[in-house]
This record gives sequence, C-alpha cells and structure tokens, in this order.
Amino acid sequence: MQFTRFDRYVDRHAHSFTERLQELCRMPSVAARGTGMRAVAEKVEQMLQRVGAGTRTFKVGSGFPIVYGECGAGERCFVIYAHYDVQPVGLLTEWSSGPFAAVVSDGRLYARGASNSKGDLVARVAAVEAYQKTFGKLPVCLRFVVEGEDGLASPSLYRFAEENAELLRADGCVWDDGYLDTKERFVISLGFKGIAFLELRAYGARTDLHSKWGGIVPNPAWRLVQALATVVSPKGVITIDGFSSHVAPLTTEDRQMLKTVELDEAGLRREFRIGGWVHGMTGRELTKELIFGPTCTICGIRTGHTEAGAKTILPGAATARLDFRLVPDLAPELVVRLLREHLDKRGFQDIEIIELGAAPYAKSSPASMVACAAIESAEEVYGKPPVIYPIDPASGPVGAVCGVQHPHTPVVSFGISYYGSNPHGPDENIRLEDFLRGVKYFGRIIHRLAQLEEDAELARTKDSVVQLNR
Amino acid sequence: MQFTRFDRYVDRHAHSFTERLQELCRMPSVAARGTGMRAVAEKVEQMLQRVGAGTRTFKVGSGFPIVYGECGAGERCFVIYAHYDVQPVGLLTEWSSGPFAAVVSDGRLYARGASNSKGDLVARVAAVEAYQKTFGKLPVCLRFVVEGEDGLASPSLYRFAEENAELLRADGCVWDDGYLDTKERFVISLGFKGIAFLELRAYGARTDLHSKWGGIVPNPAWRLVQALATVVSPKGVITIDGFSSHVAPLTTEDRQMLKTVELDEAGLRREFRIGGWVHGMTGRELTKELIFGPTCTICGIRTGHTEAGAKTILPGAATARLDFRLVPDLAPELVVRLLREHLDKRGFQDIEIIELGAAPYAKSSPASMVACAAIESAEEVYGKPPVIYPIDPASGPVGAVCGVQHPHTPVVSFGISYYGSNPHGPDENIRLEDFLRGVKYFGRIIHRLAQLEEDAELARTKDSVVQLNR
Repeated sequence: MQFTRFDRYVDRHAHSFTERLQELCRMPSVAARGTGMRAVAEKVEQMLQRVGAGTRTFKVGSGFPIVYGECGAGERCFVIYAHYDVQPVGLLTEWSSGPFAAVVSDGRLYARGASNSKGDLVARVAAVEAYQKTFGKLPVCLRFVVEGEDGLASPSLYRFAEENAELLRADGCVWDDGYLDTKERFVISLGFKGIAFLELRAYGARTDLHSKWGGIVPNPAWRLVQALATVVSPKGVITIDGFSSHVAPLTTEDRQMLKTVELDEAGLRREFRIGGWVHGMTGRELTKELIFGPTCTICGIRTGHTEAGAKTILPGAATARLDFRLVPDLAPELVVRLLREHLDKRGFQDIEIIELGAAPYAKSSPASMVACAAIESAEEVYGKPPVIYPIDPASGPVGAVCGVQHPHTPVVSFGISYYGSNPHGPDENIRLEDFLRGVKYFGRIIHRLAQLEEDAELARTKDSVVQLNR
Repeated sequence: MQFTRFDRYVDRHAHSFTERLQELCRMPSVAARGTGMRAVAEKVEQMLQRVGAGTRTFKVGSGFPIVYGECGAGERCFVIYAHYDVQPVGLLTEWSSGPFAAVVSDGRLYARGASNSKGDLVARVAAVEAYQKTFGKLPVCLRFVVEGEDGLASPSLYRFAEENAELLRADGCVWDDGYLDTKERFVISLGFKGIAFLELRAYGARTDLHSKWGGIVPNPAWRLVQALATVVSPKGVITIDGFSSHVAPLTTEDRQMLKTVELDEAGLRREFRIGGWVHGMTGRELTKELIFGPTCTICGIRTGHTEAGAKTILPGAATARLDFRLVPDLAPELVVRLLREHLDKRGFQDIEIIELGAAPYAKSSPASMVACAAIESAEEVYGKPPVIYPIDPASGPVGAVCGVQHPHTPVVSFGISYYGSNPHGPDENIRLEDFLRGVKYFGRIIHRLAQLEEDAELARTKDSVVQLNR
C-alpha cells in the first residue's frame, strides 16, 4: 500500500522518536511552578526547525513563550495546537518513579506530560519528518502553535490570538485531547464544552471569631451554603432562573453521533469507585448528559478551620469555586449574568462573584475537512471504527485558536493516550505502541487532508463547468 | 479595713508576682504542638508546693499531666480549675513581639497564655500566698486542678474525673473564664453552654476527578451543601426536627439576671467590623439570644481545590465541621440523635456524622456559695457592680469537674482579662493592673467563702435548736 514505506520509516526510527520524547519529558515544565519554561520552549522550537519549519517565538507580557512553526505548502492551512507545559506532579510519594525520570518499563513511558501532551507533539512532528522522508514535501501547510500555559487557563494564547489573527487563519485545527478507551476504541472529538470558572465569596466579621458568637454574628459559611443550595437542586438539576432555556436542542447529526458513543459504564464505575451515576442514569441518557448536558460543579469550598485540632470558630469569610461546563448556546458571560440575577432575586446581593476564567464552547461539523480526515484515517491504524464525540465534555482554549465567533475554524481532537494514562494524577504514562500508532495516524491525516483538498478542487472545477454550461 | 494588710502585701510583691507569670509565659505549652508540656506541668506543681499545697500529678494514657494541689483546711472544699496549655500562636508575623517573649510594655504583658489562662492561675496562687502571709492559714480547703489539654477538648480531664471522683467532691468550683468588658464592668458567669462538635462527611468518587465528569458523577460537595441547607434556615434559625422543643423556657431568675447584662453593641460591631447582628436583633432580644439561644455554627468546610491555580475538579469528598452551643435542656447526645434523624428523614442517610467532642451545659444558681462570694466581692475591687451572665455563651469541660448530672457542683467563672486581651489571636495580653486586682479579688473570695460557711453553720445551729424545741 501507499503507506508501507512510511510505516517502515516510523518503525525503524521508533527508538529515536521515543528518545526525543523522553528528552522532552525530562525537562520539567510545570506552568504553576514556572521553572525551566524557556528551555522547553527552545527545545520545541528546535524540534520544529529540524523538520524545516519556519519558527517564531512570541512572548506576551510576563507569560511563557508561545512557539509558532510553519511547514509545508499548499492551498490549505491547518493549525496544530499543542502545549509544552505539564500539570503539577502532586504527591511525589504516589509516583512509582520520578515524574521527570521518563522511565520506560513494560512498553510504557512514565512521565508527567507524556500523555498530556508532549507525546502528541513529538508524535506529530515525527509524522511530518516521516512524511517528508518517504513522500517528499508536505502537501498542506501546517501551523504548529505550542503554548506553555495550559495549566494556567492560557492567558498568553488569547492575547497572541488577538494580535496575530492572520497566523491562525486556517481551514481546520487539530487539538491534542483524546485517547483509546477501555475497549480500545479510538476517541475523536469534534469540539469542546465551554467553561465559566467562578468564585463565590461571602463575608462576615473581619476575622474568624470564637464560635460563642454563633447566635448573633452573621456566619458567611451559612450564607454561602444557603446561596449555593438555590443554584443546584438536591436532585442535581441546575436551577438558575432562565439557565435551561438557553440549552440548544440536539440536531439530527448530534443524535446520530450520540448513538455511536458508548460509555464503559461498569469500567468507569469501578475506576471511580462509585455505586451509581447522578439521577441513577444509564445508557443513552447517561451519554447524552455527559456530552450535551451543561454542568455546575463545586470544585472547592474553603472556610474556617478544618485542620487537626478542635478549633471551634465562626469564620470571617467563605469562598466556593464553581465551574460551569457549557454547551450550545450557553456563553460564559450569559451564565455569569444569569447567576448574578438569580442570587440577587433571592436576597443574596452580598455574595460576590469573581470570574476566574472562561472559554466558549466549540462545536464543529463532522463534514469538515479535519473531521473527515481524522475519522476516515482511524480504522486503518486502530483496527476499528473510532468513537466520535460531537463535543468533548472537557474544555480548552479552543476559542482562542479557532475564534470565539461562529462559524469558527473547525476543530478535531484526538491523542496518543489510553484509558490508563492518568494525565492529571501520579504515574502518568503512555504505551509506546500507541505513541508510534499516533505517528502513523498523523501521517495518514496529512495525506488525507491533501486528498480531500484535491477532491474539493475537482468538485469546484466541475461546479464552475456546470455553471458555465448553464 | 480588714484587707489593708493583704492589699499592701500584694502591692509590695507586685513585681515578683509579675515575674512569676512572665516566667510561666516564657515556657511554650501549645497542646496542639505538644512540646514542653511536662516542664510547664512541673513548674505549676512547684508553684503550688510553694504555698504549701500537697500536690500530685496524674497522667492519663499518653495525655499531658494533670496537676492536682490541695491547700488550706475547713469544712468546705472548693475546686479551682485552670489549664497550663495555651492556644496555637497562629501567624508569627501578626505579633508585635514574640508570643513567648512575655514582654511588658505600657502596663501590659504580651504573651500567648497571659490571658488564657496562665494569668488567672498565677493570680490565684499569689492570692493564696498573700492570704497566708497576712491572715494566716486558709480558712477553706482549695483544690487546684490544672490540666494541659484545654486546646484538645480535655480528654485526660474527663478520664481523671471519672477515676478520681473523691478529689473533685466540692461545695463549689471556680472557673477561669471572664474579663472586664468595654465599659470596664467585671463579668461573672454562673455556667457555660454545652457543646456538640461534629463533622459531617459526604463521599463521591475515590479521588478528585476532572470536572468534565460533573454532570454524571455524584458530587459530595453539592450533597453536603444540600444537607446543610436543611439544618439552618436562610434566616439563621435551626430547623432540625424537634430541636427547639427541647429548649427550656427562661426562669424568673434568668429573666432578672438578663436585665443586668448589657452588650456594648456599637463597640462589638466596630471590633468585629459587621454592619449588624443576625436577624437585625438589638437590645434585650440580642442579649437573650447570645446567652440563652442554642447555636449551630459552621466552623469550617473543606472540599476540593481552593488554592491558587485554576484547578477545576470534581471533589471526591467533602467535610463540614459544625459546633452546636447548647442551653438547657439540650444534651449533646440528644442533638446528635436529632440531627441524624433529621438527615435520614430527608434522604441524607449517606452523610456521615462524626462526633469530635462534646460537653454538657452547666448552669448554677446565683444563690450558691461560690456565686455569692464572687458577686459580693466584685464591687470592692472593681468599683462597680459586676455583670452576671446566667450562662457564658462559651463552653468548657465543666461537666468533667462539676459532674455531668444535675444537680452538679455549682460553678462560677471570672478572670483577669479585659476586652482587649485577644486570647485566641495575635498580641494576646493582659493589663498588669487587672492581674493585681485579680489577686486582691481572689483573696476576698477566699475570705468570703469562709464567712458564708460560718453564717451557714450558724443558720444550721439555729435550725437544729428550733427543731429541738418543737
């Protein structure tokens, strides 16, 4: 077949590709800590230069560098998003080996960032190299955009996007979230939920007081609890006035794709160690809620004293962090406004709302070039038809890259991880076989994008001929 | 007058008494940290031996020593409670001088423990010394009980009390909580509210999850909020089924004492920096709520992530600490049972209740010997009639010392602190003048207790004469 030489090249260079990834993983780049970021950014730039990309590094204010690299040529441009920063490592004692040791064991590479998402970046650049060595020039233009603030809600990326819109003009965008599920099915997403990340604050006395004052001094913890209790019902339904009326009904396309998604309910319940799902949902209803349901999650509450020691105090302040995951047509600004009005109407004018972060949802058509290329290339590499999520239940700065307005640049997302990658926890790891399959898969996507472009060109020509004949 | 020599002795030894207190305050004895506890206990024992007390030190399991010292003689015995442990120091940066430097400045002694309550202990032992030097032998028997676990809910004291009931048999008990209020009125309490200190726990997945699961994985933080919201109404009323029916009506005596209590509302509002009180209460209503209202205070909530960084997670667990301050006839066990039933009835069987600590309320008659002695001696030393709280809104291990059954040993509580002592915060301090007044006051109480005993003896004799004549 067409890809025999390509695949052979990948297999012959498997060791070298893996070493490149290990090298990158051994450079700690926890954005929240902020050390070593510049060195990793430089390494990424060198990697891109090695496959002939013209690169530039952008720095917004005191943010971490954004590496931009363009390679290939052709009518069509595609943005390849990645981030070189990694999650905090958490408790070192929970790791079997050092999070930055990048140890290979049992066919797996263990490292913070291996799955999320240095592995994806290295695999995609490796695919470009393999393509060039076996097919020659890239038939499409690829624009790598690699940021270092994924763990910080990407403030630099938004500013960069505003100031460099022309660099992001593209016919499609490839994101880096995705994995093989517990049934080894390859997961492709055609968008992401939006997010509104808020902090609610209530204030009482100027400081924590002896709790003997509990009967007469206002307690901000009670105040916050009472306010929160009006936001989500005991059954878990979001009860903010007017909220649900903004949730768009599913399209026919949505319903069809939804049928292909199948959660491994028993496996996930075991993994999470939960007895059941919210509302006792199962099957299609559960899948629909996961993908098309907006969420309102208490991410954390902090008030008073909860450490060791019998310290009975009346707290001076109470804060709760809420994160809303947003589906069409819920915009972050709308949610903040509705919540404010909802609280005010119930006498909770004193509860402050602080906006910690926001991103709009993104939802692309399965008929877009990037979606077609990803969907059509999957089975050949992964052995079965992919699972297609109309929207990924997670969120990301897709709006920055693809535009917050509709219609935005179509996006498709997938990755080299698997169900056991644990990207935010200890022992983050990837299977090296998946990493190499990721290289082979991305090579096919490059090829397929060029083919689709040719087909479209042909169709356009025919179309104009038809028009001329009229 | 009778006390001229006594007072002169105190004034002449003011410097030496202060030095003794400084010495004790320089020994850190934070129970929560646990270092240096044995050394302080030994020091306390030496102090008591110095005034001729027969002492014993009790150790319960791995707890901190309880120092017991008995001095004086006579028909009547009185227990003098104190604790040698101090509160944690909190943030060192908030202190003007080292919390264990015991610096004297501007007539004030600054030290952790100076107010709560090493100052009371040293003043009371100094009063015994001054009494012995100026009057001769103590006319009553005093039994000092000095524990080291005030900051840990006094587990050793409860065990000690069970195993040594005869040492605690007494005609009255003097506690160490009290102060001069913002109007320089001396505050005496005739009891304490009880306490039930609980932790409520809700569980979800085995660990914190990515919040994209928010729509389908049960969130223990929401669960806890919904459960809590049923416990206290938005207006601050405790809504546990059956709770309020156990609150005893005020007696005529209660109502009369209540009239003498006057809160410095404006001063307290300024100190706490609050705009108003719960329910907008003021005046008599406010005082009544403070003293005779049971409370339910959220002391702390912990769940999820609330530190820096945009970590949007679905928490795996959520806990809230609640402290109930209890008035007659609410017993801690009753409150736990009512809360359990209340939650179960509303479908919150999954919310765990963990009992962290409990103490019964104590309420004594103003006609008891200790109450009379304290009340009648106050004006001579403090210049105006004392304010008498039928119940102190705070709680303590009074039940251990005075018995949890009714009728218990009558208790009276007062101290050498003032409104600005800040006993749980930074710059804890006492005014040295108050410390010396405390010595003089306690000397008068010893004297008055003996007088009251003589009067009672006389009354008893007359009574038996009358009976014989019948």
